[in-house]
Amino acid sequence: MSGVSKLIINCLPLTDDERRAFAEAAGDTPQEFVGEPRQRGMMGWKAVVPDDLKSQATAVIGNIPPADCAQYPNLDWLQTWSAGVDPYLAPGVLPEDTHVTNATGAYGQTVSEHMFAMMWSLMKNLPTYARQQSEHRWHDLGPALTPDGATVLVIGTGDIGSHFATLCRSVGSHTVGVRRDPTKPAAGFDEIHGFDELDALLPQADVIALAVPASADTYHLIDGRRLTLLKSTAVLINAGRGTAVDLIALARALAEDQLHGAGLDVTEPEPLPADSPLWDEPHCLITPHVAGGNHLAVTERRIIDIALDNVRRYAAGEPLVNVRR
Amino acid sequence: MSGVSKLIINCLPLTDDERRAFAEAAGDTPQEFVGEPRQRGMMGWKAVVPDDLKSQATAVIGNIPPADCAQYPNLDWLQTWSAGVDPYLAPGVLPEDTHVTNATGAYGQTVSEHMFAMMWSLMKNLPTYARQQSEHRWHDLGPALTPDGATVLVIGTGDIGSHFATLCRSVGSHTVGVRRDPTKPAAGFDEIHGFDELDALLPQADVIALAVPASADTYHLIDGRRLTLLKSTAVLINAGRGTAVDLIALARALAEDQLHGAGLDVTEPEPLPADSPLWDEPHCLITPHVAGGNHLAVTERRIIDIALDNVRRYAAGEPLVNVRR
Repeated sequence: MSGVSKLIINCLPLTDDERRAFAEAAGDTPQEFVGEPRQRGMMGWKAVVPDDLKSQATAVIGNIPPADCAQYPNLDWLQTWSAGVDPYLAPGVLPEDTHVTNATGAYGQTVSEHMFAMMWSLMKNLPTYARQQSEHRWHDLGPALTPDGATVLVIGTGDIGSHFATLCRSVGSHTVGVRRDPTKPAAGFDEIHGFDELDALLPQADVIALAVPASADTYHLIDGRRLTLLKSTAVLINAGRGTAVDLIALARALAEDQLHGAGLDVTEPEPLPADSPLWDEPHCLITPHVAGGNHLAVTERRIIDIALDNVRRYAAGEPLVNVRR
Repeated sequence: MSGVSKLIINCLPLTDDERRAFAEAAGDTPQEFVGEPRQRGMMGWKAVVPDDLKSQATAVIGNIPPADCAQYPNLDWLQTWSAGVDPYLAPGVLPEDTHVTNATGAYGQTVSEHMFAMMWSLMKNLPTYARQQSEHRWHDLGPALTPDGATVLVIGTGDIGSHFATLCRSVGSHTVGVRRDPTKPAAGFDEIHGFDELDALLPQADVIALAVPASADTYHLIDGRRLTLLKSTAVLINAGRGTAVDLIALARALAEDQLHGAGLDVTEPEPLPADSPLWDEPHCLITPHVAGGNHLAVTERRIIDIALDNVRRYAAGEPLVNVRR
């Protein structure tokens, strides 16, 4: 850390009790609370730092605009409330020796639950029943699917993938993970394999869930060729990054009943263009990138817990957690 | 059992292997297989018994038309493939001493899973996202809900309610059952209470799931007054009997945001009339009585397993299981 006196600028939308906890965690280290409590419960938080504090700040908690980073010459630590920190790690945005920590771990529950809800919904044909409902139509669509006894293939075994696998296993699924280094364990998985085995795993999967991190090289990981490897009863879920699935190939595969259904919370581009055939595909469920964010109250509490722990560590000169640089 | 030689008429749509298993289970007891294997995987099975066999039958496996029962003068056992047997127990349909066994236990998984899918779908606002999808609209609906840490109140703790509670508990819910005799235990529940405590339990519930059997006196159990007791974030699920919820009161409560949403697989009457305001209520998810039936392959296998066990018992002169009379 630099020789300048420490000053933490805390942009979190805190309750009075939480402010007291942060003040206590910081001890003698000065901390300015500039967060707006009314942002609590809103889907996106906004960090607004008064100009006179920017030059003094040695630490900021909050996603300040990357373009403003140059106004913080003494910044030695940035704690984001997002999981993604790519904009801050881009060359020239922050000095090389500025520590960057994120909120990984806060979003696993909300994203994986949304994926789980999409999976159940598609297995029980609820999107198609919802369409019939809009036509006031009472009609049995026939067979449904179950995750009980199903093989669930999760591509990406990080916080989100691991959480999703745990949910699926709790309702009777056999969970198979795919990650770069298959020798590393991950919670919630019955088996873990490398990406080189993906083509062999796809034909056995009843559910294929994509939770690949933004850092992986996963452009069109699920393309037209791999879609032909799926069971006709397979359910595909993507809540990682939109580019991981070739949406033109997916639209064609769904139209040809190559798989049972697809749930997409992320698309490429976003928003999904109004003329995409996927909007009207009855076996495709589309949500507008809402799996993450602050849609669950628990996510806000976890972000605050991570930041609180790091404020205590920063004040005490201990190593930070969730370090991305 | 009567003094006439036993003859089992088996109307199940069996595979060759299953027929062999039934033949073995029956031993020396004659058994005629009249089922149609092609009905396998269809949502409803139909029992068609050749006229010349009706008078000889001492046992029938299958839901023969109740009006035809008089054509079976020697029937001492009827095994249904349904859970409900009320039409066969009506006065004059079958002799008083005819044993009636049903397929209770075969439907718990399929109905409870459908309820679980409806609950997750409503908690994550998927029905409203589906409506937006039909308009090609990409718009964040804000906060979502989670069953993790939620209190799930299940009214009716039989096969279906118990299965549903087990699913909810596996994803972190606190499960509270309501049954006539609260001193009787039921799997999947953290607490069990009597119907006299219902009004005190409703304001604490995040989810209210109705799985009351057709035999209970549950007409408008959830009425306008009780709907006012719910949390504004509560999710109501009914897959038991349509009459358990006052749908006029529910439509009003949903329109006034008295609760978060409702999932109905059963209505009163069925089909839901085309002019019901519930069809267009964005926070109501309607499915056309499809939670049960043979929508899951596992249900068919369980019906067959129950019947197989009882055929063995019938041939051996042992007490039958799933006895309803």
